[in-house]
Amino acid sequence: MTTVSSPLNIRKAAPADAAAIWSIIGPTIRAGETYALPREMTEQQALDYWLADDRETFVAEAGREILGTYYIRANQQGGGRHVCNCGYMAAASAIGRGVARAMCGHSLDRARKAGFRAMQFNLVVSTNERAVRLWRGMGFEIVGRLPGAFQHPARGFVDALVMYRTL
Amino acid sequence: MTTVSSPLNIRKAAPADAAAIWSIIGPTIRAGETYALPREMTEQQALDYWLADDRETFVAEAGREILGTYYIRANQQGGGRHVCNCGYMAAASAIGRGVARAMCGHSLDRARKAGFRAMQFNLVVSTNERAVRLWRGMGFEIVGRLPGAFQHPARGFVDALVMYRTL
Repeated sequence: MTTVSSPLNIRKAAPADAAAIWSIIGPTIRAGETYALPREMTEQQALDYWLADDRETFVAEAGREILGTYYIRANQQGGGRHVCNCGYMAAASAIGRGVARAMCGHSLDRARKAGFRAMQFNLVVSTNERAVRLWRGMGFEIVGRLPGAFQHPARGFVDALVMYRTL
Repeated sequence: MTTVSSPLNIRKAAPADAAAIWSIIGPTIRAGETYALPREMTEQQALDYWLADDRETFVAEAGREILGTYYIRANQQGGGRHVCNCGYMAAASAIGRGVARAMCGHSLDRARKAGFRAMQFNLVVSTNERAVRLWRGMGFEIVGRLPGAFQHPARGFVDALVMYRTL
């Protein structure tokens, strides 16, 4: 049985995780409040994106229950390939349980081991205050503000933040 | 005969323009000083990128000589799809002749017609002072600074700028 107190294990995603990953990323994509992805994406399109060849994808599990997933990839090519980018999503049922924080910590380690020198979030929706607070606590700085760059389904055009930290 | 004073005509790129486009983008990619693209890209890889399905690509010609090329695309999907992104390259022989400025002006018109609400440059290399000055003159603001986000072949790790303007 999975319990709230099971320790979190973060491992590479496997093909068999697809349904569990969709159960996490699907609701976030459909809500359209935090990621610049089409709300109408199909399950296959979403999985193709989240598990694309240009990134490594991980899952965070407690016991046998997958509570979160993240990817890490180079943010740019060529002269920009030493900066990585990540996307993290946690199950709604796991909000407040430290899953995103644990995944971010894992990704920072992974990034250093992979030789990246910095991590960049290109579009943190400014109304996603929980995320902004968390990333700041993880050492990221707001290095840019993009006026009205995100259309929030309820709040309309809101600013997006560029967040960055060296490794 | 093409003369320096020929008026610049900007039109959609056609398949027959591939060689001329490569003659412009190839040296810029090989130099690796201004674009975050792999310096070792093949001609085909570069053209596949520059003419990809997710963007519209234009050429600027004086008489029958192509002096510059640019693309316009959505910078993000979903809630971010109202912000566009462009990349511009001019022939080395045309530097200082206003080709980049003309292409930028054309792209701003194109962006408005296509319904975009803003234009964003994600990674303007800070040492590319001519470009920074030009984009500022075209109404872009520096909204972010990414510390050491670009590895310049001669100057090492230099800052990159995020530039943005509403339309």
